[in-house]
Amino acid sequence: MPTGPMSGSVKTLGSSVDILLAMALQEDLGHGDVTTEAIFDPEHQARAVVFGREPFVLSGSYGFLRVFQLLDSSVRAEPLARDGDLVPAQVPVFRLQGPTRALLAGERTALNLLQRLCGIATLTRQMVEALQGTSCRLLDTRKTTPLWRALEKQAVCHGGGKNHRFGLFDGVLIKDNHVASLGGVAPAVQKAREKVPHTLKIEVEVETLEELVEAVHAGADVVLLDNFSLEDLRKAVEINGGRCLLEASGGINLETVGAVARTGVDFVSCGALTHSARAVDLTMEMITK
Amino acid sequence: MPTGPMSGSVKTLGSSVDILLAMALQEDLGHGDVTTEAIFDPEHQARAVVFGREPFVLSGSYGFLRVFQLLDSSVRAEPLARDGDLVPAQVPVFRLQGPTRALLAGERTALNLLQRLCGIATLTRQMVEALQGTSCRLLDTRKTTPLWRALEKQAVCHGGGKNHRFGLFDGVLIKDNHVASLGGVAPAVQKAREKVPHTLKIEVEVETLEELVEAVHAGADVVLLDNFSLEDLRKAVEINGGRCLLEASGGINLETVGAVARTGVDFVSCGALTHSARAVDLTMEMITK
Amino acid sequence: MPTGPMSGSVKTLGSSVDILLAMALQEDLGHGDVTTEAIFDPEHQARAVVFGREPFVLSGSYGFLRVFQLLDSSVRAEPLARDGDLVPAQVPVFRLQGPTRALLAGERTALNLLQRLCGIATLTRQMVEALQGTSCRLLDTRKTTPLWRALEKQAVCHGGGKNHRFGLFDGVLIKDNHVASLGGVAPAVQKAREKVPHTLKIEVEVETLEELVEAVHAGADVVLLDNFSLEDLRKAVEINGGRCLLEASGGINLETVGAVARTGVDFVSCGALTHSARAVDLTMEMITK
Amino acid sequence: MPTGPMSGSVKTLGSSVDILLAMALQEDLGHGDVTTEAIFDPEHQARAVVFGREPFVLSGSYGFLRVFQLLDSSVRAEPLARDGDLVPAQVPVFRLQGPTRALLAGERTALNLLQRLCGIATLTRQMVEALQGTSCRLLDTRKTTPLWRALEKQAVCHGGGKNHRFGLFDGVLIKDNHVASLGGVAPAVQKAREKVPHTLKIEVEVETLEELVEAVHAGADVVLLDNFSLEDLRKAVEINGGRCLLEASGGINLETVGAVARTGVDFVSCGALTHSARAVDLTMEMITK
Amino acid sequence: MPTGPMSGSVKTLGSSVDILLAMALQEDLGHGDVTTEAIFDPEHQARAVVFGREPFVLSGSYGFLRVFQLLDSSVRAEPLARDGDLVPAQVPVFRLQGPTRALLAGERTALNLLQRLCGIATLTRQMVEALQGTSCRLLDTRKTTPLWRALEKQAVCHGGGKNHRFGLFDGVLIKDNHVASLGGVAPAVQKAREKVPHTLKIEVEVETLEELVEAVHAGADVVLLDNFSLEDLRKAVEINGGRCLLEASGGINLETVGAVARTGVDFVSCGALTHSARAVDLTMEMITK
Amino acid sequence: MPTGPMSGSVKTLGSSVDILLAMALQEDLGHGDVTTEAIFDPEHQARAVVFGREPFVLSGSYGFLRVFQLLDSSVRAEPLARDGDLVPAQVPVFRLQGPTRALLAGERTALNLLQRLCGIATLTRQMVEALQGTSCRLLDTRKTTPLWRALEKQAVCHGGGKNHRFGLFDGVLIKDNHVASLGGVAPAVQKAREKVPHTLKIEVEVETLEELVEAVHAGADVVLLDNFSLEDLRKAVEINGGRCLLEASGGINLETVGAVARTGVDFVSCGALTHSARAVDLTMEMITK
Repeated sequence: MPTGPMSGSVKTLGSSVDILLAMALQEDLGHGDVTTEAIFDPEHQARAVVFGREPFVLSGSYGFLRVFQLLDSSVRAEPLARDGDLVPAQVPVFRLQGPTRALLAGERTALNLLQRLCGIATLTRQMVEALQGTSCRLLDTRKTTPLWRALEKQAVCHGGGKNHRFGLFDGVLIKDNHVASLGGVAPAVQKAREKVPHTLKIEVEVETLEELVEAVHAGADVVLLDNFSLEDLRKAVEINGGRCLLEASGGINLETVGAVARTGVDFVSCGALTHSARAVDLTMEMITK
Repeated sequence: MPTGPMSGSVKTLGSSVDILLAMALQEDLGHGDVTTEAIFDPEHQARAVVFGREPFVLSGSYGFLRVFQLLDSSVRAEPLARDGDLVPAQVPVFRLQGPTRALLAGERTALNLLQRLCGIATLTRQMVEALQGTSCRLLDTRKTTPLWRALEKQAVCHGGGKNHRFGLFDGVLIKDNHVASLGGVAPAVQKAREKVPHTLKIEVEVETLEELVEAVHAGADVVLLDNFSLEDLRKAVEINGGRCLLEASGGINLETVGAVARTGVDFVSCGALTHSARAVDLTMEMITK
Repeated sequence: MPTGPMSGSVKTLGSSVDILLAMALQEDLGHGDVTTEAIFDPEHQARAVVFGREPFVLSGSYGFLRVFQLLDSSVRAEPLARDGDLVPAQVPVFRLQGPTRALLAGERTALNLLQRLCGIATLTRQMVEALQGTSCRLLDTRKTTPLWRALEKQAVCHGGGKNHRFGLFDGVLIKDNHVASLGGVAPAVQKAREKVPHTLKIEVEVETLEELVEAVHAGADVVLLDNFSLEDLRKAVEINGGRCLLEASGGINLETVGAVARTGVDFVSCGALTHSARAVDLTMEMITK
Repeated sequence: MPTGPMSGSVKTLGSSVDILLAMALQEDLGHGDVTTEAIFDPEHQARAVVFGREPFVLSGSYGFLRVFQLLDSSVRAEPLARDGDLVPAQVPVFRLQGPTRALLAGERTALNLLQRLCGIATLTRQMVEALQGTSCRLLDTRKTTPLWRALEKQAVCHGGGKNHRFGLFDGVLIKDNHVASLGGVAPAVQKAREKVPHTLKIEVEVETLEELVEAVHAGADVVLLDNFSLEDLRKAVEINGGRCLLEASGGINLETVGAVARTGVDFVSCGALTHSARAVDLTMEMITK
Repeated sequence: MPTGPMSGSVKTLGSSVDILLAMALQEDLGHGDVTTEAIFDPEHQARAVVFGREPFVLSGSYGFLRVFQLLDSSVRAEPLARDGDLVPAQVPVFRLQGPTRALLAGERTALNLLQRLCGIATLTRQMVEALQGTSCRLLDTRKTTPLWRALEKQAVCHGGGKNHRFGLFDGVLIKDNHVASLGGVAPAVQKAREKVPHTLKIEVEVETLEELVEAVHAGADVVLLDNFSLEDLRKAVEINGGRCLLEASGGINLETVGAVARTGVDFVSCGALTHSARAVDLTMEMITK
Repeated sequence: MPTGPMSGSVKTLGSSVDILLAMALQEDLGHGDVTTEAIFDPEHQARAVVFGREPFVLSGSYGFLRVFQLLDSSVRAEPLARDGDLVPAQVPVFRLQGPTRALLAGERTALNLLQRLCGIATLTRQMVEALQGTSCRLLDTRKTTPLWRALEKQAVCHGGGKNHRFGLFDGVLIKDNHVASLGGVAPAVQKAREKVPHTLKIEVEVETLEELVEAVHAGADVVLLDNFSLEDLRKAVEINGGRCLLEASGGINLETVGAVARTGVDFVSCGALTHSARAVDLTMEMITK
């Protein structure tokens, strides 16, 4: 079910993510877990399982398990489900075994990350389901948590969504400020085409149907229709006649996404996927004896 | 209004936060903003203001403004309000002036951070207001976004809350696993007292009134009452008789926090402050000509 | 003259480049310049100018000057020419003034970098001149010096060339291994289109005219013609009929680039630009008294 | 014998310590050990043992052994004693086997660290023995070697001492400057109590018995008696009557610590433990053939 | 054949080189290889061999193989030749097996590094052969690629050359600016001798035979003869009479190096070794099915 | 008075030292100084002076002052003496002014470093004075505190000593293991000479007069006489007849160094300089009102 270029790239991304995880552990752990170190000997062993108190789409397995291995390479960490799986409540997704100190030291950091990523994947899945029966694809945005974008964009893929550009460097999106500075959509598109690598498409943001016409004629590859009404979206699809890819954006949510998709646009993008997804209620249950 | 040890410590924290901000910029910017660099010359200048589309409590000024200065030290960044201020909709909180490239390159990263921190401060303020008329203080938890805990805990202070321990290293919290391993609350408290620095209080989590009695007798400094009913909270306050500090925790929200506080506990702690606060809807409006 | 998205982005890239420069200084300087520190007091001042012993296109000003400022912020460093300028032999391009220790400590690192970047810009300029009278653009490749790609790609822009994708992350280039795995050009193009962000064009590498036809029909955006003869390039242009962008690649040099361009392809790409450009013979002349 | 929260936490601290060790190796090794690389082939193997020329309390095993593994993971490193053990002269504490280059490259860095940590543990043990027969505990201070505090505080635990706060962040210690600024001990204690996390005790430094009275009445949790005479310490214990914990500090050494303890204070703290401990005379004897 | 202190020290240098390799991978790979991740599943396996299209001296094996292991520790990487070996065209030097994604992700970075290092080793070998029959040794310089000096100096050793000082910190080289500042060669040598560690020889650069005489009398250990004619080199050897080591430098190349060596100087140094060596034409051939 | 190549190189070393200082601050400060932040507003200003309670030789000014500037660039920090100065008791060496929070946050870290470096400089000065009337120079060793070697070696220069090699990379020291492996001093010297850069002298450690003879004949540049009696040192000087530089080492202290020097050896080296120097008793006195 998970699609998109990011799915499965955890190994490739590994070293960067590992640095973030190590920093996050350092943030919580500082010079040590004073409670646990007072009570448990270094040799003390424990087991644990992780499950949700509600159904959810899993995402973030690599990071969750890696937290514990970074703390202590003797921790055995076993996934019981795969990223992208829809997991019922109370069903364990990970099994851990190792030094009690490591399990307790990593618990909060690992869960803080996991509950967020699963929340994103779960919300994405819900919105993707609302698109069924259309050819419209759901896109994320750059409205992600600073430093966790790669994992959050993977979570969108695990939920069935598709990634928009990763950052400012791998996609061209001409906005009103850019257009205003050059005096129109056409010169902006032309200047971008001349300067940016030919490997990148040119996307332009428009706010009216008139601007859409201008963008199509200027040879834009993609047009972002910002805050269009359903009726204007339908007109835009008609005017465009398949020449550009069309992306609808602006305040789209679980209630409205289906109607937007049925106007015939190619994509809907939604900042709330990464930015307002509710954290999933997850628990790590330990058996220390 | 903002209280707590973190408020005002931005300068002290500066260098750590700067590293995170620089990494976040790198995440979004990579080798450059291909759109903006195609269209704006390096010399092109712009101005911008930032405001909310709804009222909010400001938090995160240091990070917001620092993002732009890290990009280009010639950006002039002026705060128009202070962290902890309640800001009406449409009222500007920052004014920026500098190279257009720097303003556009920093916009998304700076807003992604700010909207989250303002969301936390705003939710905290709402909950703190629900405590008025009681002596109960609102506490945060360790359920924060990995790597951004210092700023999120500052946001709680800006909202009028008080910080719980920062991490595992600066507070003792004995949980059920710890207790189980030593065969009771009393030996756990005693072992912690013997081993941890004498500068730290000993807090114990209990799930029943019986455990509370045990904790009080064991000489705990603080008792965390986990998921107690209002009635049991009242009984706990009576049983305790002022010997330990009492902290209520577990599923407390804006609706329930007032009633919990009125049971007479010293503290309520709430993970949702940092973990489910809705992002504030903020805009950066640029004038590029 | 310099074009392309990277030109002028030095400020944006600054912090990343600064880290590399600081590491390079550390490599050469270790715990100190034992000769200079034995002979010159910390207060001793000097002036210096930098010029070529041959004409060259300037590139790398930011890095050159920054090396000295990183060593000692009291160094005054003044550029006398701009990146992209064609500079005659013996004409100074930088003037420096400051502590003798800093000037001598930075000299070799700064020149090692500058001579390479000017070499790339100079070779690029020569090849770009060979394209005059055609609409064909000269592209670089990923065959750059590890860790210095951003600066080398800027040097290509300073020479008048255009950048291909920066790395594996901001452009799709389907090669024979990819095609073979999916059993043909068409399914490879389709799978890439489905998975990668819609902001990226799909480029396919082909080795025969038959594969070109397949790629065009599969809806590729760009086709890389690998090691085609001049005659086959002409046929490719004719077959393509303007549907895809065409990029000629493989063993192209200063002698052959003009003929290749006149076949009508849109782009020629050349690894030698970054990988075999001869270092420019540059000198830093100091006046220490 | 070793107690305190830090003992045994080496695995948790591992990654931070590893970074320091890698930096320390880099400091000594730079681009290589020119002597050894000239004379020994990479394949050449050696064995070594480490012992003291005097009896000592062992501390620093993790760091000592880790130095060699960071250099070459094929080194086999075996501890023959445990941190906290009292080791007679000439008795080996580590056995190493592996590439001669790695053993010689790590020797100095590993010993420089170990001799310092064993010195701290050994001095601590001597002072702890002088406390026998009292319930007074020996504390360290923040007067540690910059960057090596975690290991030095562990060494204090290995010697039988107890750790004071780790840094400025995990304990409140109100000093004369703080008191002066708020015009008295009572308002200082009150302000600290209001602002700092409730997980931290409030400790106040006093210089007279009058200030002690004030601190006790202000509800301080701990009082640091700075440079009190033995007689004043005895009076302080009497005045306090068990309400606060009392810590004696200031110029305490091996000769005086017993008498100070017998005044009835709860703790004595001693900067000299980490700051003036004599390095233990340790040797690494190699067998290269 | 490879000599010099650096050969074989890859393990010692490992961690520093690994950081550079990881950064280089990050440069090329960013958040992922969008093409390969779209087309190959994470589980897909491939094999590959690497060979030259021309004969070459191998150097850089550690870095080449390490790139892939850093990407994915499950890659099996086998060297088929040793650094310093002269390898015929078409003969494989490495065999790789592992996840297709890792092999494709690492290919360009690994080859970019390897082709440069083999180029240096190959050119060095050619120049060393031109010295046969003399006792003159070929030296490198500090004109290396920033950040890759350790590997480039190893490549010189693999080619049969000898390393000059690594940086400014491990050798004294008094140049004209130093001499001018102190008013003569003799005071410069004397001041350096007084101040620098006694472990370092004193080398002086001279431009005339008169200066050579002064340097010899001043007790220099080594004299660098800068841009001397063949005739003056012969005179210098005669004047020196074996008292100092003599190093000839300045514009020496494959054509002239033999004649220079036959003047009787002890060393010739050549910046072009590291700075103008042509990259070797290397290929990585993959079998993905 | 301070001599040696390191004196005055603080600017060159600056960036490396700054990283260590920032890490040291982070160690002590973590997420903030909870006491000070509770009591002093961010705007509160203070002044401070630093002086010794005993006379001492100053070293470490750069690091001491830099600590405060890294915390808050608005701190004004003024040195009242220079490194290398002999400072009487009670005489201020630094004057600081700035935010109280920054002064209190940096105090301990800055003093921890300074008291150690002044201790080294002071002990060195005492030993250097014991050498007066001889031409013998006092050398340090590699027995330094890990990570602080550069500053500790500077402190030796500030005390009037001279630096031995900085690390394993900038000096050749052939020890018994090296000799044993090659079957004698002569082959070891010859192999080192062949392989190491010609910029480095060859030093050999010997334990008997017979080995000294062998080393002299083998053409060693320097001979380290390990644990020789005064009589054997005198014989060694006679045997050597000025051919090699002679360095006496092993258990030399303030009492014995003069007699050792008067045997006529060129150098005495002393590990205790950096490894057993007593910390100077320094105080930072604050005026917060």
